[in-house]
Amino acid sequence: MTDTSVEPVERVLQVLPPEIVVTDPDVMEGYARDQSRFTDHAMPSAVLMPRSTEEVSACLAAAHAAGVPVVARGAGSGLVGAANASAGCVVLSLHRMDAILEVNAADRLAVVQPGVVTADLRAAARRSGLFYPPDPGSVEFSTVGGNVATNAGGMCCVKYGVTGDFVIGLQVVLADGRVMRTGRRTVKGVAGYDLTHLFVGSEGTLGVVTEVTVRLVPEPLAPHTVVASFGSLTDAGAVVSAVVAAGLTPSLLEILDRTTVQAVDAMSGMGLGEEVAALLLVQSDDPHAEELLGRIEGICEEHGAVDVARSSDPEEAALLMEARRLALPALERLGDWLLDDVAVPRSKIVEFIAAVEEISARRGITIGVFGHAGDGNLHPTLIFEDALPESRATALAAFDEMTRKALELGGTITGEHGVGRLKRGWLADELDPVAMQVHAAVKHALDPDGLLNPGSMLP
Amino acid sequence: MTDTSVEPVERVLQVLPPEIVVTDPDVMEGYARDQSRFTDHAMPSAVLMPRSTEEVSACLAAAHAAGVPVVARGAGSGLVGAANASAGCVVLSLHRMDAILEVNAADRLAVVQPGVVTADLRAAARRSGLFYPPDPGSVEFSTVGGNVATNAGGMCCVKYGVTGDFVIGLQVVLADGRVMRTGRRTVKGVAGYDLTHLFVGSEGTLGVVTEVTVRLVPEPLAPHTVVASFGSLTDAGAVVSAVVAAGLTPSLLEILDRTTVQAVDAMSGMGLGEEVAALLLVQSDDPHAEELLGRIEGICEEHGAVDVARSSDPEEAALLMEARRLALPALERLGDWLLDDVAVPRSKIVEFIAAVEEISARRGITIGVFGHAGDGNLHPTLIFEDALPESRATALAAFDEMTRKALELGGTITGEHGVGRLKRGWLADELDPVAMQVHAAVKHALDPDGLLNPGSMLP
Ligand SMILES: Cc1cc2nc3c(=O)[nH]c(=O)nc-3n(C[C@H](O)[C@H](O)[C@H](O)COP(=O)(O)OP(=O)(O)OC[C@H]3O[C@@H](n4cnc5c(N)ncnc54)[C@H](O)[C@@H]3O)c2cc1C
Ligand SMILES: Cc1cc2nc3c(=O)[nH]c(=O)nc-3n(C[C@H](O)[C@H](O)[C@H](O)COP(=O)(O)OP(=O)(O)OC[C@H]3O[C@@H](n4cnc5c(N)ncnc54)[C@H](O)[C@@H]3O)c2cc1C
Repeated sequence: MTDTSVEPVERVLQVLPPEIVVTDPDVMEGYARDQSRFTDHAMPSAVLMPRSTEEVSACLAAAHAAGVPVVARGAGSGLVGAANASAGCVVLSLHRMDAILEVNAADRLAVVQPGVVTADLRAAARRSGLFYPPDPGSVEFSTVGGNVATNAGGMCCVKYGVTGDFVIGLQVVLADGRVMRTGRRTVKGVAGYDLTHLFVGSEGTLGVVTEVTVRLVPEPLAPHTVVASFGSLTDAGAVVSAVVAAGLTPSLLEILDRTTVQAVDAMSGMGLGEEVAALLLVQSDDPHAEELLGRIEGICEEHGAVDVARSSDPEEAALLMEARRLALPALERLGDWLLDDVAVPRSKIVEFIAAVEEISARRGITIGVFGHAGDGNLHPTLIFEDALPESRATALAAFDEMTRKALELGGTITGEHGVGRLKRGWLADELDPVAMQVHAAVKHALDPDGLLNPGSMLP
Repeated sequence: MTDTSVEPVERVLQVLPPEIVVTDPDVMEGYARDQSRFTDHAMPSAVLMPRSTEEVSACLAAAHAAGVPVVARGAGSGLVGAANASAGCVVLSLHRMDAILEVNAADRLAVVQPGVVTADLRAAARRSGLFYPPDPGSVEFSTVGGNVATNAGGMCCVKYGVTGDFVIGLQVVLADGRVMRTGRRTVKGVAGYDLTHLFVGSEGTLGVVTEVTVRLVPEPLAPHTVVASFGSLTDAGAVVSAVVAAGLTPSLLEILDRTTVQAVDAMSGMGLGEEVAALLLVQSDDPHAEELLGRIEGICEEHGAVDVARSSDPEEAALLMEARRLALPALERLGDWLLDDVAVPRSKIVEFIAAVEEISARRGITIGVFGHAGDGNLHPTLIFEDALPESRATALAAFDEMTRKALELGGTITGEHGVGRLKRGWLADELDPVAMQVHAAVKHALDPDGLLNPGSMLP
């Protein structure tokens, strides 16, 4: 029987093994928010650290019985506040469930627990001669569970697709503690609804993922790399559109603008170049990479590239990719930052970039543009001073303008980072009213009490 | 106000434009069932033939108001009874909505109405130098809407994936007539739940698809083809597993067993060979096709292939593919038939094929095996005499045994044809009880009155 004289959270904690419960404020502090800015958060009432699906189920059943909200958490590397604690919630951290359960070369799949770090899964696949493509910039610390819950992208997407394209099955614990499996181990299968992809990208609002089955692909050849620099950002954007229109599919096609290049140079001393207005990084891991990159070099030259260099040396390539991975950390050093994450149809990249440049000039705010250009997925990053209300206001206004522009161009408010708390208010701008109603209906069907990650994603 | 003195169906018909309503029994007869066997069906009360999303919405709103069940229908080429009419229903045929609205090379996408025939979309893409890969055996007559609703597979899947892998956005009319959009025109996007893939494969039970946005890929090179014949079916199966394990990805990898080869020969006079126990058809459309196929030929020879022939001639290739497309029509000529559609992990193909051979021998029933071997997706086809109750019973028992075996091997009851009425009773054998509960909850959230395709897919 429920003892109603105790606090709801106490009722949760008292039925759980003490060794999976943390209430030390100093520790809990580290679980209160993710890596986003401008998102609200609170101190959790407790952090739960289950070691098995059974324990996750016990946590959720107890929270459900007590009416306590639950925020699932991977590595907390998210950029939209989707893992932020809400008032009175318990944070359910999956980091202890970090076993790679199976890498199966014969069936080209792997089964992992959600707390496995993305890079560890990639390394395990590689040891079996296989490749797990998803590679968000956070690959060294984000978890597979977090990647699934956000449908994380990365640099490989232009050729390989996003996290969801590799997820073929899940184990999920529902809001009330019931455990189910979705999907299967076969390549194809259409028995019932595609619940797997309903949970992919659901940002912890529909259930907690406790096991992930991913398909793997044969390990590709070491990539060849082309770096092209441009005198204008729109020239670089035009190359991206032209590459797509020419039917070419590199395995990586990233863009860095002047602000970003200079920030990376300042941080790393790489010497990418003072005078560079935009850099394109292009890779191909195809057997015919040389020919493909040759054609892309031609397109770069047609569009006035200042410098085009090719390398087949894996170490040099890794170094250049490091420059790309440093983009955000380097921009962080310029001041306070607010990162946008929009995607536009690839024919609209130039138009979007031009709009960002115009907004930056008109509002007098630094915006570093980088991102997965080959997917039309850009991360214009605003640099401002958080202590100055006016600077803050300018940043927010510019952010809104950019996001609005992406929608106007037939794009989306979020290409890969998710909605979370940062873009919750935007969802109804992208989706039509009936789609919003269906979101509410699906949420209600799976989490009728609204206990999973309240205040995130849905209004 | 609702006039309750009239029949429910009359209440539907009286609010619709007469030119979209058919009640002539001779015409309706052709809309009562799909191409499946052993599935129940009834005469519809009416067939509705809307010409626009607005008319689809009017049809569904009227049916909803009157409490009349609605069965959506594309070309009726399905093989599981998913488009069969149920008692008292109206059939909603989308065949008039057959416009290709857009083929956009710059954004590599197309937008089509649901009634577009799959081959017509492929042809339109090709005219823009692009490729829409999904190619079910029914490609010349199935509709894109039906392909989406069944998440149809085909021969290209081993390299390119299934229909759902190309669908990036939908327009859907809900059970009560509300219209919504899902997805978007960008390559990436994670704003909200992945409703697009909730509708993909939902077999007309959650909503009616009225527009489909698909991504296209650059048109590949003309494929090179290898045909290898084997003295035993399991040898051919072992080649498939070995090709997967070796990390090779052809663009097509199909299997035909002796029964199927002989049936095709008898129908077409192609002369594939009397003594062939199994045939593998392999294609690659990669730039390095020759090398890839060379390696596959080597694997064939290691596994005792009797004959291995390669062709780079597109016409010869088309002819061989025609043999594969004739598999089902040719088997149909042997007697009454019941087609299974299971998928197993690719390491289990040999074991599954051996089980089918054992079942065929033990029960004394002819089973023609063919299918998308590269995906582990096989279509063992039972030949029997429908007029003989005993023969019918044997066929059904063998069918059950094969489907059960696929599940035992970690496979699925349906690789691509769907659940429909044929495998409705099997769904709970594959899915766990909580997954079944979630199916019911999702169905209830979207179609609370259970008016969309009742009696199909869900128990
Ligand atoms: C430097 C840097 C670079 C980045 N680059 C990229 C990039 O290239 N592409 C990209 O897409 N993102 C990128 N990100 C964002 C972030 O890393 C991704 O969103 C990542 O997928 C989050 O994983 P996580 O384990 O940190 O999840 P968290 O941040 O802990 O959680 C994210 C969301 O997932 C939910 N969640 C976590 N685990 C589970 C689970 N097991 N079950 C259910 N829900 C769960 C949480 O509730 C939350 O809603 C980057 C972040 C940083 C800091
Ligand atoms: C010779 C032959 C070969 C075949 N080969 C293959 C193959 O290789 N791979 C494969 O996957 N299938 C194959 N099939 C099966 C069939 O062709 C596919 O399932 C196809 O996708 C059905 O399309 P359709 O337009 O005929 O749909 P229908 O049979 O009319 O309907 C199928 C299902 O979709 C629903 N539906 C149809 N249109 C809509 C809509 N607009 N909105 C919502 N629901 C809708 C129906 O209610 C039903 O549940 C084959 C069939 C034949 C006869």
